Amino acid sequence: MKLILLSGGSGKRLWPLSNDARSKQFLKVLENEDGQLKSMVQRVWMQLKNVNLTESTIIATCKTQVDMIQNQLGQKVDLVIEPSRRDTFPAIALAASFLYSEKKLPLDEVVTILPVDPFVQETFFEQVTELENILNQTEAEIALIGVTPTYPSSKYGYIIPSTNPTHSLNYTRVQRFIEKPTELLAESLIEQNALWNCGVFAFKLSFILSILEERGFPLDYNELRTQYDKLPNTSFDYEVVEKTENIIALPYDAYWKDLGTWRTLTEEMSTTQIGKGIITEDCEETHLINELDIPIVVLGVSNVIVAASPDGILVADKDKSPRIKEIVGQSHNRPMYEERRWGWYKVLDHLKTEEDYEVLTKRIGVKAGKNLSYQYHQQRSEIWTVIKGEGLFVHNDQLRVVRPGDVLQIPVGEKHGLKAVTDLEIIEIQTGAQLIEEDIVRVFMTWDEVEEHCYELNN
Amino acid sequence: MKLILLSGGSGKRLWPLSNDARSKQFLKVLENEDGQLKSMVQRVWMQLKNVNLTESTIIATCKTQVDMIQNQLGQKVDLVIEPSRRDTFPAIALAASFLYSEKKLPLDEVVTILPVDPFVQETFFEQVTELENILNQTEAEIALIGVTPTYPSSKYGYIIPSTNPTHSLNYTRVQRFIEKPTELLAESLIEQNALWNCGVFAFKLSFILSILEERGFPLDYNELRTQYDKLPNTSFDYEVVEKTENIIALPYDAYWKDLGTWRTLTEEMSTTQIGKGIITEDCEETHLINELDIPIVVLGVSNVIVAASPDGILVADKDKSPRIKEIVGQSHNRPMYEERRWGWYKVLDHLKTEEDYEVLTKRIGVKAGKNLSYQYHQQRSEIWTVIKGEGLFVHNDQLRVVRPGDVLQIPVGEKHGLKAVTDLEIIEIQTGAQLIEEDIVRVFMTWDEVEEHCYELNN
Repeated sequence: MKLILLSGGSGKRLWPLSNDARSKQFLKVLENEDGQLKSMVQRVWMQLKNVNLTESTIIATCKTQVDMIQNQLGQKVDLVIEPSRRDTFPAIALAASFLYSEKKLPLDEVVTILPVDPFVQETFFEQVTELENILNQTEAEIALIGVTPTYPSSKYGYIIPSTNPTHSLNYTRVQRFIEKPTELLAESLIEQNALWNCGVFAFKLSFILSILEERGFPLDYNELRTQYDKLPNTSFDYEVVEKTENIIALPYDAYWKDLGTWRTLTEEMSTTQIGKGIITEDCEETHLINELDIPIVVLGVSNVIVAASPDGILVADKDKSPRIKEIVGQSHNRPMYEERRWGWYKVLDHLKTEEDYEVLTKRIGVKAGKNLSYQYHQQRSEIWTVIKGEGLFVHNDQLRVVRPGDVLQIPVGEKHGLKAVTDLEIIEIQTGAQLIEEDIVRVFMTWDEVEEHCYELNN
Repeated sequence: MKLILLSGGSGKRLWPLSNDARSKQFLKVLENEDGQLKSMVQRVWMQLKNVNLTESTIIATCKTQVDMIQNQLGQKVDLVIEPSRRDTFPAIALAASFLYSEKKLPLDEVVTILPVDPFVQETFFEQVTELENILNQTEAEIALIGVTPTYPSSKYGYIIPSTNPTHSLNYTRVQRFIEKPTELLAESLIEQNALWNCGVFAFKLSFILSILEERGFPLDYNELRTQYDKLPNTSFDYEVVEKTENIIALPYDAYWKDLGTWRTLTEEMSTTQIGKGIITEDCEETHLINELDIPIVVLGVSNVIVAASPDGILVADKDKSPRIKEIVGQSHNRPMYEERRWGWYKVLDHLKTEEDYEVLTKRIGVKAGKNLSYQYHQQRSEIWTVIKGEGLFVHNDQLRVVRPGDVLQIPVGEKHGLKAVTDLEIIEIQTGAQLIEEDIVRVFMTWDEVEEHCYELNN
């Protein structure tokens, strides 16, 4: 069996901690057994490891999440990178073609789709493993996991079992699906043994490939990538599951939760406060997550989430907090903090002058052994002041060692790169007519090639 | 008549907007007729101007407030600067000796003491003017203004009138004072025509001087300054008013308010929001004051104050907000934003390394025509990057013109100064074993002397 983990979503419902570069699954707000903070994706990955499934897993994601995934799960994770961010049907189709034409998996291989962030007990993943057997034994086209409902939620999709008696293998045949029923209807569905649809689907590789073939799409991964934008931008539920007759569901009767809102997320936090500040003792059901360096005092206010990052600060009633999605929905501001493969950066200050230039000040951290690629800018000059650690700086093919106190001036168009020998930090001051993150022209060399190139030129 | 405005207090009850350098009276949260924001002290100064009293006014304050007062009221304001921050009795005594020995006022001059931040209607200052007449006509030792109470407050001091009928001049003789009575007692005091004590006292200069003389203190301003710490550190009410027999009170029967808490201050704001952010429409009685560059979203939370400055962020129930004073009472953190005579600075970042040094990054603004004094540091090196405007930079007696993009490196012990030709901004990166604001050794020259000195040396 192969697992495809779907890692998507911009997670605006958890603004300001989540943004386009950092979806909710990457927020480190959950606690490990050892007391360290971990993210939802790290928690799921650990659970998959415990049932020996990580080796069989690939993650379908988009370009902006690659650095974050590799930082949190390591470099060895198998990734399928979508050319653009689209819905679950195209993402699953592309990943399936990757397994078929790149990984050369047989057509009868069982493929299981899993969201990247279900908050569940480990037995959930035992049921995931079980899906393969069930699918083989029943010859159903799709096997799902259905969560036993704990209350008549109007926010989930329901799996309605057929009236036939339950099979000895403890699965049920699926009659149909009902999306987000009223609470009243949900109550009567639960009486009929309906289950929550938690987005886990298993099928044979041939099943999804034949759907692609029928519609005239190529099965070859590279060809399908070029046609990615032509795939219908709809969910796998809508495009495939709801049009399939022969479906079974395996019930899962334990803890399951979608940590998609501040309410549900904070319910799973083992502490009421992360970061600098104070919550006075008369606050009830109040949580504070502060990623800023300045302290936050929450005084006598109950049932609120206060969340702060360099992108913004939210003070919200927990039950009303999902509305934050609409409020920040339109804005596409520059992210003020980003984690990258090589380290991180934080925007400290942004001056927009009335004249024809702007100035952006950042603090940048490069991890020991990592490097900023050799590059130049067409619109901006940069001034770097080393404030911590030791590094190698290359400037117009000249290499030098740099240390705290060194000031490196890089005019527009001049090539530069930086490798951290020990953990390195700099203050960067960018100046230019228009400062956009994308104004980077990369010189395509690995760092070793850069060093060799400089050595040859100068000796 | 001479007025002494008392400008003291650290205003921790309005944290994080007020701090040791910026007391509550300087917060620009009130609105002018022209829609511009102004502070309490600016409002009072404007009202004094309207009754032609500013020329007769001196402000008694401490060193840390001088720059702020001159920035907000102009350079011409007459100041008496206390050698250290103490209670109202020493402050008034020192100011009185200043009027006597420096300003050479006659002994029968009427002196009126006024807090710097009463929130009142202009008729209040007409009553202040009237105090002089009343004092001369009644030969009382002290004349007060008493505010007609609007509710039985347990937070104010009450002036209890004597039972004698009120005089035709519309003043009452004072029988005694009661501080912070219970609400029940306050109700019965109000029935007896008691008034609120609003901290306005008028007396003849000879009255206070004789008190000083009796206790063996000098009347000469410079001599009293040197003995300032020996004056009892108590309030003028306690030390003088409560021990005086012959006191009268002039009633003021209109709007009066002490804007000392977030509750009372926000009641007088004409807008619910100052600064970047959003308050959703379902918030009631909620105010947002944001001095940060990042947006704050307040979603569905009523009756709270959200206030943010580089010093910290407060999210508080308005009625509980006075407790902030105790919470931040102990902390004496570096202010993150300060206004100065020459401009302002903002701390952007502070790195404390595990090694033996720290790094502080600031954005500094110098107003056109102003300068940073010629100085050097014993513990820190500085790197300045000019990001806006044009200036004159002096470095070890060498003058040069500087413009955006220029990087100025100043090692430990090297003399440097900067004058803004146009409004100038720099990013400053300080590095040193211990970064304290006080590590400044000034070279005592005016800027003109600095320029002349450099010219002579180099020509």
